[in-house]
Amino acid sequence: MQDLVIAGVGSTRFGKHEGIGPLPLAVQAARQAILESGIDRTRIGAVYLGNFVGGVLTGQEVLAGLLADALGLPQVPCTKVEGACASGGIAFRHACLAVASGACEAALAVGVEKMTHASTAEVTSALNCAMDNASDGMSGLTFPGLFALAWREYGAATGATRAQLSAVVRKNKANGLKNPLAQMGALVGDDEIIQSPMIADPLTLFDCCPVSDGAAALLVTRADLARHAKAPAVQVLAVAQTRGAARIAGHPSLTSFDATTAAAAQAFATAGLRPDAVDVVELHDCFSAAEIIDSEDLGLVPRGQGAAWAGEGRTAVDGEVAINPSGGLLAKGHPVGATGIGQVYEIVQQLRGRHPNQVKGARIGMTHNLGGTGVACTVSLLRALGA
Amino acid sequence: MQDLVIAGVGSTRFGKHEGIGPLPLAVQAARQAILESGIDRTRIGAVYLGNFVGGVLTGQEVLAGLLADALGLPQVPCTKVEGACASGGIAFRHACLAVASGACEAALAVGVEKMTHASTAEVTSALNCAMDNASDGMSGLTFPGLFALAWREYGAATGATRAQLSAVVRKNKANGLKNPLAQMGALVGDDEIIQSPMIADPLTLFDCCPVSDGAAALLVTRADLARHAKAPAVQVLAVAQTRGAARIAGHPSLTSFDATTAAAAQAFATAGLRPDAVDVVELHDCFSAAEIIDSEDLGLVPRGQGAAWAGEGRTAVDGEVAINPSGGLLAKGHPVGATGIGQVYEIVQQLRGRHPNQVKGARIGMTHNLGGTGVACTVSLLRALGA
Repeated sequence: MQDLVIAGVGSTRFGKHEGIGPLPLAVQAARQAILESGIDRTRIGAVYLGNFVGGVLTGQEVLAGLLADALGLPQVPCTKVEGACASGGIAFRHACLAVASGACEAALAVGVEKMTHASTAEVTSALNCAMDNASDGMSGLTFPGLFALAWREYGAATGATRAQLSAVVRKNKANGLKNPLAQMGALVGDDEIIQSPMIADPLTLFDCCPVSDGAAALLVTRADLARHAKAPAVQVLAVAQTRGAARIAGHPSLTSFDATTAAAAQAFATAGLRPDAVDVVELHDCFSAAEIIDSEDLGLVPRGQGAAWAGEGRTAVDGEVAINPSGGLLAKGHPVGATGIGQVYEIVQQLRGRHPNQVKGARIGMTHNLGGTGVACTVSLLRALGA
Repeated sequence: MQDLVIAGVGSTRFGKHEGIGPLPLAVQAARQAILESGIDRTRIGAVYLGNFVGGVLTGQEVLAGLLADALGLPQVPCTKVEGACASGGIAFRHACLAVASGACEAALAVGVEKMTHASTAEVTSALNCAMDNASDGMSGLTFPGLFALAWREYGAATGATRAQLSAVVRKNKANGLKNPLAQMGALVGDDEIIQSPMIADPLTLFDCCPVSDGAAALLVTRADLARHAKAPAVQVLAVAQTRGAARIAGHPSLTSFDATTAAAAQAFATAGLRPDAVDVVELHDCFSAAEIIDSEDLGLVPRGQGAAWAGEGRTAVDGEVAINPSGGLLAKGHPVGATGIGQVYEIVQQLRGRHPNQVKGARIGMTHNLGGTGVACTVSLLRALGA
């Protein structure tokens, strides 16, 4: 993928968008990405749209085709892709494949979700579509429950503390305050975190990402076609997509997700890089506990030391590896299908040196998008051009 | 795509599968396709699953990953693709792209839908996810209504008769009787068709495809890797995917769907064939009227003569071009996400000379899968090896 670049990105604010459906959100983000890319829209040869519960929560499917129609794109293949919370990352990968394979010169990847209009019960039920409902779903498990179990197992194995877990929340909420796209940045203290409503012991409300609306978009093309981009293009070094165990019982341990370790290994091998090359990562912190586990699975933090690194501030924006300077899912929000593309949006701004919460001198960035109970994962490695 | 072949296919019966979810149906079809292909499952490098309303009607998403896990496949990329009723065709195309691009040696495409457990109101509501609900859906339109309007416009333009429309129903229902996978084959007379309950004037119950459960699967690989297949492999000459107008008002006329004409033109150009080369086609007869319009859009029948050809029996299994010898959606059934793969299953059996309703000497076959109000379409051209 040496000559693939992201020539333009776009994003709505993540949060509550009242009285608007998923399509206008997607259009807004996509228009911005196309304009920024400087690519004539007649050159766009494929559209991939990541969306998870558009049917269930909004009664709207075929969003990829509706989007292309609204944008006035040619009669190109338009495909919605779904892999639960990894839907956005999968859309990004397929846009890259479309260009890398020579099928087209430029491809649009968009992620979108509209959720905040639904009740908590409706959202919980919709999100549980990401579980194998013949087994895990039937057991009464929800995602907060899964990650609470994971944290208990992690704590038992490593001696990690509640204060270390809270450090993740404090960092990401504070990072979110600097990000104008973020849904709920905040300065929170340990007491406030612990005293917020218990969701799945020991995870409280602050340990859980919010329910969000939003869309993000990017345009992938060949480096030689990105000359008219209105902002620096960013090189795509690798995008890996993997599958993990489908059911909880299929994981040897909840302290590691095999889809993540496999995707990271593939991405590093493709890019010819080692984890210590990564300056900044946007990873899938759907829960505070997930950030710690993910940071180890991606090889960014030594195994068993994720909580300690978080507690010591080594994953802060000025730390050894900056994790989720956007605020992550915890503070930026998690409009499910949009999240994976939103992560790329953030890393692109970092590698351009234009992020509102800039990691100084960031040259290599990473994204990590995890779906379901670990059944789907994408990992990408991006590089600042000229780096 | 010269060296791409379908090395194995599988299918459940289409119809009512009580007390079983979409996953076991998909597993059944996929196992059959993999076994028939003779390909070791460790060589399968991608899984694409076409599904439309799994979330809405069964509460189950991430089916691609769950399927791969159930099949014991490696940790390869697993992606659900959606383009309403064209979801299956889109899955087929992406499996072809995965192998043609060199990303993997073999790819599995599966389509599945589970619908019959839901009420008519639930199914109608779910199917309307395929419309732009901010415009067409809000107008109160349903799919029978759309195709009734199309038939009225077609009739006004061509002078086509109810008897010609009924000829499509009679043919496909009779074809279905010969197909053990078909949901509702029957010998029906013109009176019975006209006297069946009116759905959307002038379309009666018999003019509409049934609500169905089912799954179909196929394995795509390179010709040189298909040597151990347990049935003759079939060559993939072309698979085109296009987008059409998103809303009814965007179609200059309802007597033609631009996504179909564009996809057919692309497929014939890629294959280097003309429409008269096609011996047999499985096309998207969601309604009897659709078969007539599709047959013209695909170039198989001269413009304006689709109804006349149907009335004269020129689209029968022994006619000038055999249309839907499987029974089509009208008689075989329409488990939405499975339909596009099921069409390929039927054509593969035709080109092997093993179809229960065999078109004599069939060498070139075609499939046509149309989504939404014409917003998504796939067309494939397949050839018997050695033909």
